[in-house]
Amino acid sequence: MLQKEGSILSVREDLRVFDCTIRDGGLVNNYHFSDEFVKALYDMCVSAGIDYMEIGKNVSPTVMSEEEYGKWNFCKEEDIRSIVGENNTKLKIATMADVGRTIKEEIPPADESVVDMIRVATYIHQIPEALELIEDFHAKGYETTCNIMAISKSFDNELDEVLAQVAKSNVDVIYIADSFGSFYPEQINKLTDKYLDVAKSVGKKVGIHAHNNLSLAYANTLEAMVYGTSYLDVTVSGLGRGAGNCAMELLLGFLKNPKYKYTPVLKFIQDYIVPLEKELDWGCSVPYIISGHLNEHPRAAMKARDNNDTNYVEFYNKMTEEYS
Amino acid sequence: MLQKEGSILSVREDLRVFDCTIRDGGLVNNYHFSDEFVKALYDMCVSAGIDYMEIGKNVSPTVMSEEEYGKWNFCKEEDIRSIVGENNTKLKIATMADVGRTIKEEIPPADESVVDMIRVATYIHQIPEALELIEDFHAKGYETTCNIMAISKSFDNELDEVLAQVAKSNVDVIYIADSFGSFYPEQINKLTDKYLDVAKSVGKKVGIHAHNNLSLAYANTLEAMVYGTSYLDVTVSGLGRGAGNCAMELLLGFLKNPKYKYTPVLKFIQDYIVPLEKELDWGCSVPYIISGHLNEHPRAAMKARDNNDTNYVEFYNKMTEEYS
Repeated sequence: MLQKEGSILSVREDLRVFDCTIRDGGLVNNYHFSDEFVKALYDMCVSAGIDYMEIGKNVSPTVMSEEEYGKWNFCKEEDIRSIVGENNTKLKIATMADVGRTIKEEIPPADESVVDMIRVATYIHQIPEALELIEDFHAKGYETTCNIMAISKSFDNELDEVLAQVAKSNVDVIYIADSFGSFYPEQINKLTDKYLDVAKSVGKKVGIHAHNNLSLAYANTLEAMVYGTSYLDVTVSGLGRGAGNCAMELLLGFLKNPKYKYTPVLKFIQDYIVPLEKELDWGCSVPYIISGHLNEHPRAAMKARDNNDTNYVEFYNKMTEEYS
Repeated sequence: MLQKEGSILSVREDLRVFDCTIRDGGLVNNYHFSDEFVKALYDMCVSAGIDYMEIGKNVSPTVMSEEEYGKWNFCKEEDIRSIVGENNTKLKIATMADVGRTIKEEIPPADESVVDMIRVATYIHQIPEALELIEDFHAKGYETTCNIMAISKSFDNELDEVLAQVAKSNVDVIYIADSFGSFYPEQINKLTDKYLDVAKSVGKKVGIHAHNNLSLAYANTLEAMVYGTSYLDVTVSGLGRGAGNCAMELLLGFLKNPKYKYTPVLKFIQDYIVPLEKELDWGCSVPYIISGHLNEHPRAAMKARDNNDTNYVEFYNKMTEEYS
């Protein structure tokens, strides 16, 4: 039986607020953020006491086009340094590796990089390659996480098998990732139990990466946190793929640790997010609610939003066509 | 210790989906809905298998101006009948009485009205008058509810005292109302325990009316429901005061009872809500997040939204000025 950790008015020292505004937000604009935006976000994260900032993906330029994708899809060392310098702050810098798109030989040792942590995003069927990446990055001196995606579609005991493998690795944090934004708090509760059970026995931590398709990203993050999850992914104003993520301004309002400061977040929102909302579309809306309910990838919903398609009945009918 | 009721894939026969789109949405536009809108909503609620539709307030025209407020602030019998006729459907019709603004002598006996239920909204200090209204409406043959507002500001054991009084009345349903949208699921859990404890012992039901200031309206509704709350307030697309309410299209996607139909809701949204979103402002945004965190009435946030004021730092500073 899961026990609650801490209480509503106390501080939990194990908590880490993890900003992934650029990395998940980059899925909305193909990583075409201006340097000014990224620098302002970095400065804000430092001022607000955020623990980690994921500045993008470390995909190999040999795999994806540098013309189509902005620099934060690749996170070259010199590009990161142009923003963070030597990063002599308490904020740790992270990047995300994609199995199949990140080439481990291109990643320098940690002592030659300002990057502190590499998170490895993997589908269940890619887990052996993900573990290779994790061991390589760990050996190079990075903190690592394993973000197992699309678990809501995992069959039978696949997830248990994967977790058993990940537990044997040198990874530091195992993430509950709600890729399709389809989980209810009750289900997040069970997943928290499952992940913590595996992680605690081998001295690892658990993280949560929620999506807001069902308007539950914040609630699911709270649910996971209350029962012992430590790494909490947020993005400013929920900026992220499709329905977006748990909003930093929601989570920081809940946390009682005085190291977190609220005003820098509000300042960043009014200066940088308010204008961005006129250009980019993200956040909970009917197509995402439908794809969340149906436990489907949001790509069809993203297309409907791109086309300003508000024929929701037709969208629902297409999404529920029989394919028996 | 609270026990869960039902399971994620089963049907709970005690559940009632309660639409309050017109009544809570009327707080956004002073009840100036067209007859066409209200009729389309009524038809949709019938088609979608919704259990109750609250068509407005029954404020006395002697108390508030019929020039300023639309007809659904007053809900005259002939106006309701012009929409629902004799209402020979399974959908029940409700109105809301405001303590101090509803005059009980103006309310006809239930057998002369198409209204089935009257909900009494009351602040804690108005409870004696609320109970007078409840007993009057009950004696006239209506189902009744007691919606105790602003409980997040109740001091010490006030709420327990009020609940003890309400328990002795003839009211049918006692509502947990999160007036300021400030409660977390953990707190809703405790409130559910408290309300059910009182209600069950005297054969009453419990309801939940959530607001979305912290993007938790749906999550809080689920939390209350999972632990035994039966009456679940929703509005289409969350239309309601300030940050709005729990969205009907979210809740119906969760409920497994085949009597609820999803397509009519989507059709209503695409035909009536999509255009309305261009005229009216509601839903979670930074000012509501701040007022929710601070457990304050959203009126200052509503004003900021009306003025398109995105100076969030200044708003936050004003809301947190010392007043010791």
